[in-house]
Amino acid sequence: MTKFKLTILGCYAATPRTISNPSAQLLDINNQYYLIDCGEGTQVQLRKLKFKINRIDHVFISHLHGDHVFGLIGLISTFSLLNRPNKLTVFGPKGIKLFIETQLELSQSHLNYPLEIIELSAKSPEIILDNAQVTVKTIPLKHRIYCNGFQFTEKINLKKLNIEAIEKYGIESCYYYKIKQGGDITLENGQLVKNDKLTFPSEPAKSYAYCSDNMYHEKFISYIKGVDVLYHESTFLESEVALAKKTMHTTAIQAGKIAKAAAVKKLILGHYSTRYKSIEAFREEAQTQFEAVDLADDGKSFSW
Amino acid sequence: MTKFKLTILGCYAATPRTISNPSAQLLDINNQYYLIDCGEGTQVQLRKLKFKINRIDHVFISHLHGDHVFGLIGLISTFSLLNRPNKLTVFGPKGIKLFIETQLELSQSHLNYPLEIIELSAKSPEIILDNAQVTVKTIPLKHRIYCNGFQFTEKINLKKLNIEAIEKYGIESCYYYKIKQGGDITLENGQLVKNDKLTFPSEPAKSYAYCSDNMYHEKFISYIKGVDVLYHESTFLESEVALAKKTMHTTAIQAGKIAKAAAVKKLILGHYSTRYKSIEAFREEAQTQFEAVDLADDGKSFSW
Repeated sequence: MTKFKLTILGCYAATPRTISNPSAQLLDINNQYYLIDCGEGTQVQLRKLKFKINRIDHVFISHLHGDHVFGLIGLISTFSLLNRPNKLTVFGPKGIKLFIETQLELSQSHLNYPLEIIELSAKSPEIILDNAQVTVKTIPLKHRIYCNGFQFTEKINLKKLNIEAIEKYGIESCYYYKIKQGGDITLENGQLVKNDKLTFPSEPAKSYAYCSDNMYHEKFISYIKGVDVLYHESTFLESEVALAKKTMHTTAIQAGKIAKAAAVKKLILGHYSTRYKSIEAFREEAQTQFEAVDLADDGKSFSW
Repeated sequence: MTKFKLTILGCYAATPRTISNPSAQLLDINNQYYLIDCGEGTQVQLRKLKFKINRIDHVFISHLHGDHVFGLIGLISTFSLLNRPNKLTVFGPKGIKLFIETQLELSQSHLNYPLEIIELSAKSPEIILDNAQVTVKTIPLKHRIYCNGFQFTEKINLKKLNIEAIEKYGIESCYYYKIKQGGDITLENGQLVKNDKLTFPSEPAKSYAYCSDNMYHEKFISYIKGVDVLYHESTFLESEVALAKKTMHTTAIQAGKIAKAAAVKKLILGHYSTRYKSIEAFREEAQTQFEAVDLADDGKSFSW
């Protein structure tokens, strides 16, 4: 069964500090790693948390503000020093190709692995990755610069066998894979048994939506409707609601409203401004709108 | 009296790790900060060691390999968030302007302080900074990419008063500054007293030379002749001398030979490859050539 494990590498706004890291997350779906955003110091966080970094094949950059991207060039270079064999695909806003290539060129870095950079510029959601495991769709966000969130939805490939029913029909195990793939079975007596008699109804596909940075607006809520887990930025508390609007960020209360309106199962808050001494107030304020709130923190993991 | 205090922020080659940082140093000359190189994570190292980072007005970048420069854009951006008032001057190889400006432009960063970028391309030593405190001269190095070391030499502005002699002549304290500046004094009886009768001979100017990255070659030794403290890279031990040559780096023994030939007072080794478990062997090998060897390490300081 597919397992989503999300590890927060960094979830603080603006600038790296000794006690906090800028935005980066590692989403592990059945041991495949998807890196989301890459602030300065991300590669050190990955090592600190003992991830095998060469297993990252896909990187998703939401926008080109430094606290979401300044660690990318270092990671790309380190991959080369590690003699990475496999291709790396980076998805990010239009301009990211120039951003990366200018630095590689001026530092005379010759990568020894294939690097593919896919630039995004659409203003509506689009599917940017669709492999055997997962579909990744962009979530257009509203910020001071072109910005996308990313929604990861499990690909349900195989059905779960109803062993009791299969044994009742006397079907041999060599047919199990065909049944898992959704196939019907013709018994030796010629009787056709439809697949739904031999399998359990599929669980709904698991999903995760990453939304940072984003100002409060209602249009985008339809994009993330019913997602299992929503990570949404909450840079500010309500006392700074005017500043949130001005800088095109979200407060904890606004994030709670979004989670409620989108009917998600769980809301994880993050991208906290470093002006606050404790992050507990973010949970309290969001919970005035929506109960199932959790707080991101550097090094923390969430599984579902 | 001028004091040089050098703090190693990072002194390991290649890639940042949890236990080691790429190249960066802070040279404090009478509370003025000069930052030399700026690998990823330098701003966090500065904070960890409790430096007031807004006091850095000058940054010197040796070359555009990532382990010497990937932390610069983050530092430049952080200075803006800190509402830095004063101008920042960055010295670095031709191309560094495009390197910085491409990233600022694509991340739509508008700095709120003046940033001056001075590109270097000379192949012989040149004076690039000459203020009331210090003269900074480039040291052309030999590496896979255009690369300079930097030599900092104290500016001796004021002489040290010989109070005993001054009192003997009955000279009033209002003349002391004139004497410190090197002026002669005419006594009330018309007698001229030359400055050298009223001051002590000046101590030799203090100096520091940073040389990284650099392959072993003899031509450059004349540039650093007699310097007080030489930081020279020693990426490898002698067992990797062929690799050192191939990658245009230096071994500890070669660094010891350079220190001896340049007749420096002290050699500090650094830019160690992370392949070695301990750095003590670097000292041992260098000391077969030159006695006064010290080892750089992250967070360590040297004063003279």
